Amino acid sequence: MSAQSPTVISFTELRALLEQVFTRHGTSPEVAAILAHNCASAERDGAHSHGVFRIPGYVSTLGSGWVNGKALPVVEDVASGFVRVDAANGFAQPALAAARPLLIEKARSAGIAVLAIRNSHHFAALWPDVEPFADEGLVALSVVNSMTCVVPHGADRPLFGTNPIAFAAPRADGSPIVFDLATSAIAHGDVQIAARKGECVPPGTGVDSLGQPTQDPRAILEGGALLPFGGHKGSALSMMVELLAAALTGGNFSFEFDWSNHPGAKTPWTGQLLIVIDPGKSAGQSFAERSQELVRQMHAAGLRRLPGDRRHRTRARAELEGIVIDREDLDRLKGLARG
Amino acid sequence: MSAQSPTVISFTELRALLEQVFTRHGTSPEVAAILAHNCASAERDGAHSHGVFRIPGYVSTLGSGWVNGKALPVVEDVASGFVRVDAANGFAQPALAAARPLLIEKARSAGIAVLAIRNSHHFAALWPDVEPFADEGLVALSVVNSMTCVVPHGADRPLFGTNPIAFAAPRADGSPIVFDLATSAIAHGDVQIAARKGECVPPGTGVDSLGQPTQDPRAILEGGALLPFGGHKGSALSMMVELLAAALTGGNFSFEFDWSNHPGAKTPWTGQLLIVIDPGKSAGQSFAERSQELVRQMHAAGLRRLPGDRRHRTRARAELEGIVIDREDLDRLKGLARG
Repeated sequence: MSAQSPTVISFTELRALLEQVFTRHGTSPEVAAILAHNCASAERDGAHSHGVFRIPGYVSTLGSGWVNGKALPVVEDVASGFVRVDAANGFAQPALAAARPLLIEKARSAGIAVLAIRNSHHFAALWPDVEPFADEGLVALSVVNSMTCVVPHGADRPLFGTNPIAFAAPRADGSPIVFDLATSAIAHGDVQIAARKGECVPPGTGVDSLGQPTQDPRAILEGGALLPFGGHKGSALSMMVELLAAALTGGNFSFEFDWSNHPGAKTPWTGQLLIVIDPGKSAGQSFAERSQELVRQMHAAGLRRLPGDRRHRTRARAELEGIVIDREDLDRLKGLARG
Repeated sequence: MSAQSPTVISFTELRALLEQVFTRHGTSPEVAAILAHNCASAERDGAHSHGVFRIPGYVSTLGSGWVNGKALPVVEDVASGFVRVDAANGFAQPALAAARPLLIEKARSAGIAVLAIRNSHHFAALWPDVEPFADEGLVALSVVNSMTCVVPHGADRPLFGTNPIAFAAPRADGSPIVFDLATSAIAHGDVQIAARKGECVPPGTGVDSLGQPTQDPRAILEGGALLPFGGHKGSALSMMVELLAAALTGGNFSFEFDWSNHPGAKTPWTGQLLIVIDPGKSAGQSFAERSQELVRQMHAAGLRRLPGDRRHRTRARAELEGIVIDREDLDRLKGLARG
């Protein structure tokens, strides 16, 4: 069998394998379980730029001493709608997991609650952070800043991160409505994937090291930078993400951390904000019925695919048939799980 | 003196004149004061598409019986972070004004609070709704849906409104950071202004009545439609605005109201959501110092103009020299104030 041939693995097996990889490279079992679930979910949903593709970056970062894979997040109950977490230089996902029960309790009681995570590393997709709230009937919005690689609209050099915005809302008949969009023209992971495949990126994606427009992903990655999506509007949203995810949490801006003493470090050391709203406090018909009506009308207007649809379909297929993965990638994961 | 010649009016005079126009055409004095302040502020700040340009639309709408210019908003204290207002088929701004003290009290106490306005008409710029919160040291985000005129990315026909998002945050040394962006490629008012001036709109702005791309603003206004900004990402954000401003408030979606029995009606009858956060609950250095640091770095990256800068500069000039306005426009306003 050739090294490039595809093979199939179940979600449970992939998650268990990734847990081994994480613990083998220095995380606690608790952190390993959370990150493995997150990463296996992205791979299962076909979100390849945040699936097992990320594992070498996690491993080199843990090896560099840049992140604390055994960090114990410290949750602070600040006010009836405000929760803070110091992620203690660990990953953002365990910090969210630690604060989640309190955040949900506050959102249901106050009608809205905010979670401000600081001193955290986020190296994953953002939709896994919001979708579970919608599964419980809540509306969730999250932003996370990352690392300097986007030139603000009208500026000369990069400052912002790819700074994604993710949103999830329940609906009556079907999976939640979920989107997760980088405020850069494309996600950083997609530039890396294009570079690995030797493909071009679309026009308007980025600039080279001289600030000139380029479609070469390597030129963007090697001294170049990305542009915001949608010109000055995407740039304004990226600025908002810096303010919400860093200034409001006490985390670093995308340009503030220095990992030069940690070769191999890949995870941005910043902050993350989540806002969770209980639509049960709304007036009128139930939110889930109303969001379902919007979906109905979007389909009637000719929209074939809603945000999140492709992931949910890929997930359903993977649950029946398993996750298709390159044998070479799987062998590499197995190697990492051993040492 | 020619009818086209510019003249100068003070903010106080313009506001008083607009108050007369509103009361003369059927609003209560309270509603007139709020709308006149809003509209005069937009004109003073150079936000012409939401300044006196809007007055004929307000007048024809009031005359049509579509909106209640004397509505008394009903404020409901729903939970420690959740305020609802039934605008009672009146304008959104008086509903916000009625709920504002309670909203601020809740935001300061709970750390975050949400205001859900329904049964409301919003015909103005959105930044005047958020900027005053930043003046009081709070961070504010607002969304409002409008009327079907935007084709969702990937759909065949219009469904969403121009659905703006506005954000305001305080900073230590200077005016707040404020933006207000339509999730359509351009604002509806700017299409109307281009049509009036006989100018083209940029490529990617909209489609004609056959769904074909066009740069003719008249073709967009007469049976055509706008496109979202930034492709599928702007479209996802526009969808989010429908969910937050309508589904979560109990207001109408942009496609749900029927004003065909009210010729002259121009104001969308929808909903509006505001989220206000108290950054005093954040960890670390003060938010205003942190946002100031972001501004410093944005300038250092070569950004000459921040979101909101142009408005604030125009405002400062108008405060010294008065508001420049066409004599013809001023005469028309005086005529409307008389009858």
